[in-house]
Amino acid sequence: MKMASNADRAVVCVSGGMDSCVCAALALKRHGRVYFLHADYGQRTEEVERECFRRLADHYGVRDRLVCRLEHLGSIGGSSLTDTSIAVSESGPDPGVIPSSYVPFRNAHFLSAAVSWAEVVGAGTVYIGAVEQDSSGYPDCRREYYEAFQRLVELGTRPETGIRISTPLIALRKHEVVEMGLSLGAPFELTWSCYRSSGPACGRCDSCVLRLRAFAEAGVDDPLEYES
Amino acid sequence: MKMASNADRAVVCVSGGMDSCVCAALALKRHGRVYFLHADYGQRTEEVERECFRRLADHYGVRDRLVCRLEHLGSIGGSSLTDTSIAVSESGPDPGVIPSSYVPFRNAHFLSAAVSWAEVVGAGTVYIGAVEQDSSGYPDCRREYYEAFQRLVELGTRPETGIRISTPLIALRKHEVVEMGLSLGAPFELTWSCYRSSGPACGRCDSCVLRLRAFAEAGVDDPLEYES
Repeated sequence: MKMASNADRAVVCVSGGMDSCVCAALALKRHGRVYFLHADYGQRTEEVERECFRRLADHYGVRDRLVCRLEHLGSIGGSSLTDTSIAVSESGPDPGVIPSSYVPFRNAHFLSAAVSWAEVVGAGTVYIGAVEQDSSGYPDCRREYYEAFQRLVELGTRPETGIRISTPLIALRKHEVVEMGLSLGAPFELTWSCYRSSGPACGRCDSCVLRLRAFAEAGVDDPLEYES
Repeated sequence: MKMASNADRAVVCVSGGMDSCVCAALALKRHGRVYFLHADYGQRTEEVERECFRRLADHYGVRDRLVCRLEHLGSIGGSSLTDTSIAVSESGPDPGVIPSSYVPFRNAHFLSAAVSWAEVVGAGTVYIGAVEQDSSGYPDCRREYYEAFQRLVELGTRPETGIRISTPLIALRKHEVVEMGLSLGAPFELTWSCYRSSGPACGRCDSCVLRLRAFAEAGVDDPLEYES
């Protein structure tokens, strides 16, 4: 079974957060058929994230959807996102420090599923909305990591597949992600970023702090509701 | 939470086949605490494979076990192992041809889970019993693929982690795997290799053909029962 890749098709990792929403908006502008992939890995706020995934897919009329249940990542733990005995860190990440919300080697699970799916449906591009600068401090959000993953894909798939890993947000500042989203008409009101709560957003965890700062720097209001 | 790796601990990917059994036997000889990881990805013979995993873990007294359910790999399909509408190929793989049993980008899913687990429990080594020569023709069973994965692990985990991907069988001929297993006292009678049947083994699929040839070349009887 030969499955050459098709430039018109792309798989997008859609967590339901603001970055993946912008990444999806960009992929939908570039490709005729876009496949939305979401991962449930036992994270604290998965219920609202999956609902955002569903609403984003509905909003864009995306029929090709795959929800990957990675319960083992929850069993493995080691992160404040998957182990409620570990506190969610607040006030924004410290430069050079990997925060407690780091889920060990998490993004490889998402990309592996996306690449497997891309290979079978013949999609030529896999998008992930990782942001390196001005962001989380996670080792698996760095440009070199995705370059290494690209090499892995070239070696670990059929030679005719030619799947490209695309990280269009990797070098953007977080406020530039907001600005790109606005220019693409991305529905930020359908996204979720808070690590701690399923609503209203806590406004204090690292992810809320980064999001609020990004909207403030972009000079626009975040449409989400926050705890007062 | 700093988690430096511990040379005495290792995670082993244990499918329940002969290669992973030998790989586990070797890891148990080298390390004081070994963690057994198994993946259920909706493959035809998962029931018997999981039973072999359990029996191998019992045999070796391994308490640390993790079964990863990768249902999405089954949903994605694209392989005769996960899609029963695709025929299982017979008579042994043709050199240079990727067989229908290739599960797109499968081993990255296993290794990702193993690396996440290793990072959290502080294991310094992840073993996988991939065999390149004399084997399946899968792109993700080649030495360069594991070298690329090693690079990914170095970039995608905490810097103090230092996890090493070990593929001790990669350059062995299949009969040498049998010989190594015999020298280590590996319990081949507790393993399963057939792609098609949960018992007795079909003796005709590529995996049975490679196994039977390996035992024949090693000059010993395969303890499994085959269809007559």
